[in-house]
Amino acid sequence: MTETEYARGLEGVIAAESEICQIDGAAGKLYYRGYSIEDLAQHSSFEETTYLLLYEKLPSEPELKDFTQRMRQSRDLSPVILNMIRDFPPAGSPMELLQSVISYLSSSVEHRIRHSADCNCRRTLHQVAQMSTVIATYQRFKEDKDYVESRPDLSQGANFLYQLRGEEPPAEEGRILDTCLLLHAEHGFNASTFTARVVASTYSTCYCSISAAIGALAGFLHGGANERVMNTVDEIGTKENIESWLDKALDEHRKVMGMGHRVYKAKDPRATVMEGMLEELSQKKGDRRLYEFLKHLEGSFRARMEQKGKPIYPNVDFFSGAVYTMLGIPRYLFTPLFAAARSSGWLAHILEQRKDNRIFRPKALFAGPTPRPYVPIEKRPSS
Amino acid sequence: MTETEYARGLEGVIAAESEICQIDGAAGKLYYRGYSIEDLAQHSSFEETTYLLLYEKLPSEPELKDFTQRMRQSRDLSPVILNMIRDFPPAGSPMELLQSVISYLSSSVEHRIRHSADCNCRRTLHQVAQMSTVIATYQRFKEDKDYVESRPDLSQGANFLYQLRGEEPPAEEGRILDTCLLLHAEHGFNASTFTARVVASTYSTCYCSISAAIGALAGFLHGGANERVMNTVDEIGTKENIESWLDKALDEHRKVMGMGHRVYKAKDPRATVMEGMLEELSQKKGDRRLYEFLKHLEGSFRARMEQKGKPIYPNVDFFSGAVYTMLGIPRYLFTPLFAAARSSGWLAHILEQRKDNRIFRPKALFAGPTPRPYVPIEKRPSS
Repeated sequence: MTETEYARGLEGVIAAESEICQIDGAAGKLYYRGYSIEDLAQHSSFEETTYLLLYEKLPSEPELKDFTQRMRQSRDLSPVILNMIRDFPPAGSPMELLQSVISYLSSSVEHRIRHSADCNCRRTLHQVAQMSTVIATYQRFKEDKDYVESRPDLSQGANFLYQLRGEEPPAEEGRILDTCLLLHAEHGFNASTFTARVVASTYSTCYCSISAAIGALAGFLHGGANERVMNTVDEIGTKENIESWLDKALDEHRKVMGMGHRVYKAKDPRATVMEGMLEELSQKKGDRRLYEFLKHLEGSFRARMEQKGKPIYPNVDFFSGAVYTMLGIPRYLFTPLFAAARSSGWLAHILEQRKDNRIFRPKALFAGPTPRPYVPIEKRPSS
Repeated sequence: MTETEYARGLEGVIAAESEICQIDGAAGKLYYRGYSIEDLAQHSSFEETTYLLLYEKLPSEPELKDFTQRMRQSRDLSPVILNMIRDFPPAGSPMELLQSVISYLSSSVEHRIRHSADCNCRRTLHQVAQMSTVIATYQRFKEDKDYVESRPDLSQGANFLYQLRGEEPPAEEGRILDTCLLLHAEHGFNASTFTARVVASTYSTCYCSISAAIGALAGFLHGGANERVMNTVDEIGTKENIESWLDKALDEHRKVMGMGHRVYKAKDPRATVMEGMLEELSQKKGDRRLYEFLKHLEGSFRARMEQKGKPIYPNVDFFSGAVYTMLGIPRYLFTPLFAAARSSGWLAHILEQRKDNRIFRPKALFAGPTPRPYVPIEKRPSS
């Protein structure tokens, strides 16, 4: 590129090396530190996966026990944070609240930023563990219910449902939500993860870096796709309307939410896991309507696209909104839950950034006015 | 560059075009939208300069009147924000508080993000106007004093001193602080401004984008240089120690804080303005000690560097800490004040980003482990 050419949005530009996440878009494979997402979904938990992301290896039994204990002890909210949630304006977005709470929380942790690359990041883990508590509590206060203290015997996923509902969820529901968190824990570079690394590159605290990343995920060009899949389901209404809705949508060149992926050219492996969990949940709850609706929509859409020679597959968002809906989670909490899950990936990227840091400071190409004299206000043209 | 080469920290990489700020490092010139910083410092105000940054032109009289009124009406804090400040842990950094408050505030504004590039950003301007109120109030609560409501007849700078002290500052002190804000309002790309643009590129709100930028400025590789200049003054102690301190510092290849600039190879034009204000303030207060100390330090250091054939000049931070100190502002508020000033530059960049947006999404170069099988916990090596 010449000195005045550049890639808008830094598209295609390498910003850093990373060892955390490998995406094989052509084969439809995703690995966290070398372990396939299918293996992790089947055998691991959100807590163990967080350990893997942060410590670069699977934990031994005592390591996992200690780590899990630390995370679970960090789940509960202080009275000040409870007030922030209680007083939050009803018209506000829970993402704004989450962003605000995480930087506020930074003040109650001892940071050793200047002295080590680790900087205490992995010690208390409020910045990961409290996220889902904030979300559950936001919802409870919205419903005029009380704060529910966390249960240290429950996994991160099961505990979220417990704090949301005020009663212990059936075991399979807790496991399914925990797996949802695991599936969303990491996905390489994107605007929010990049934001976390840019902020961390100044040696700001990991809390403040994660807070900034939440701000990026809140933008509707980034988060919110699974919410929009569910809006599409509403818009279509009944299974009988799918064909005519698709006719119109394709005529109008509208995007079908949850279909296709910038990176995956084969099926998003997370979508396969998510679909299995949706089917399981539908079976347990004896209500297969949403599952069958989505399978019908997927089938019709893919058949049409294949006819056009454009094979296209569902991504993780296509099924996740339905899973959350069947677990009783309102739509506006989907992106906050995504943030709660991704917090562990963000933290892994922050730690990696610090290991071999260089402050992010790209250039701007100046394209503005040339120097001009200041004009006193009385001599300016009226608008 | 080949497919695996990249610039660490995106150094030298163009990330966007910008019309806002031009820095001529060789000539030691700085322009906001074509107007020199010297002209603006002499004739303009922080509010008018904010208008210039946001609206791309100097305002007419009615435009400035309306804009100033809107900004001044947005200065006061709600009871909820006052509680957040009151309850903020004493060990926390006011930057964490500021970052938290600004994303929290996002919830009380109507954003029209999806419908226009403007997105209501410039209407109420809490995200610019309230910053200095939060800082002043943080300090008052720290001293067990009451919140002071803002005075709509005072400039942004004078009002900050009024809200901090609880009494109206002498006119020249108000003007000097207002000019300090103006001098720091914008400076092209750096980690915090880049953060604001990355977050805004997802179509997150401008409040959430500014909150993220505060997080970046909080890192000690970014903000805090003027605080460290004052720490150097303390370390040296008396004017008589300057020579021996410099001998040792240069022997040890230590950086002298506030001297030299990554971009300016001539004198930072803001340093010239700042030096003039420090001298004026010293004169008015009848205490020239700090001014003379800094001039002596500058003179000795520059003479030594010139002997080595390395001309080096003071930057804006060299004198600003002394100005703030003479205005009675504690050191830990210097970087928060920088954020308050830069908020208008950040907002200008956010608006510019939205005008022709592309989400920031660079690539990572994967350098991690190849796919490997999951190992059940009982078969893992103990650590």
